[in-house]
Amino acid sequence: MNTFDAIKARTSYRGKYKNTHVPKEDLAKIMEAGLAAPSGCNTQTTSLIAVDDPDVMAKLRAVIEPDFMVSAPTMICVLTQYIKSYRDRCFSVQDYSAAIENMLIAIVDLGYQSCWVEGQITDADALGRKMADILGVPEDYELICFLPVGVADEPIRFPKKKEFSERAWFNGFRK
Amino acid sequence: MNTFDAIKARTSYRGKYKNTHVPKEDLAKIMEAGLAAPSGCNTQTTSLIAVDDPDVMAKLRAVIEPDFMVSAPTMICVLTQYIKSYRDRCFSVQDYSAAIENMLIAIVDLGYQSCWVEGQITDADALGRKMADILGVPEDYELICFLPVGVADEPIRFPKKKEFSERAWFNGFRK
Repeated sequence: MNTFDAIKARTSYRGKYKNTHVPKEDLAKIMEAGLAAPSGCNTQTTSLIAVDDPDVMAKLRAVIEPDFMVSAPTMICVLTQYIKSYRDRCFSVQDYSAAIENMLIAIVDLGYQSCWVEGQITDADALGRKMADILGVPEDYELICFLPVGVADEPIRFPKKKEFSERAWFNGFRK
Repeated sequence: MNTFDAIKARTSYRGKYKNTHVPKEDLAKIMEAGLAAPSGCNTQTTSLIAVDDPDVMAKLRAVIEPDFMVSAPTMICVLTQYIKSYRDRCFSVQDYSAAIENMLIAIVDLGYQSCWVEGQITDADALGRKMADILGVPEDYELICFLPVGVADEPIRFPKKKEFSERAWFNGFRK
């Protein structure tokens, strides 16, 4: 796909997924796109685990409550390490967000749908930690997001967004 | 360009820029790509100001010290509002990071170079606030990043990154 088409085609899909197989090569390609994102002072704080083993998927699905977006046959889990980079500051949130956005675009480009699931697993109930334990992720990594990956089984919807002129200007605020 | 080619061609360019004119249509296209990024609960916390007016650029350049990456003829300033979205939490950093990554890919796709400049303007010296004042940005918005936009006048370099197998795995940590 053309870059701009893929960027505009990306949306947060929250419907059911088909059981269509997602080849490992596609998951690797999506993860490569994620790792190509920049990171503060090149600290590379983001790591990724793609899950396509049905047994592991079943264990992960069992801890994700309510069971939102778990009908996808595969998912990519996003891990971060909170490492200081520039002037004693940590840019890990920026790093993993850029990696996630690259992957979301790559996912759409390959004909799949996904959704950035972060808030629901990093809350007080710490579902992310439960998922991390299943995957053997050590304590110095945090599992902060997962991206379902699969073929949509329901219509793709786009949320209503503000007009361009309400959010983007030239040479001055609201100009 | 193909999506994956653009994602892989993106790098943090810190060299000099040519004085080649960047058309307003290109800046608008880049900003549209930025605004197409997702945001927590669709709060749309990111706003953008493209600067191509030579007088405004001169004023902005005067406050950016040390004068890194200011030879570009244009820049896009990224504004955020810290608004709570999901369960009383704020995802503005994630929102603007996804928007920035989209723009960086769009910039490369159109034949330009850029660099994510954030840490240097959000430090204690608050250069971002000085830039915001020049652009008439009110206090409830924070100018947290700028992206130079222009044609590179020096060779494009890519930083050394860890191997795929050191950061991405299947079905378990380091598997």
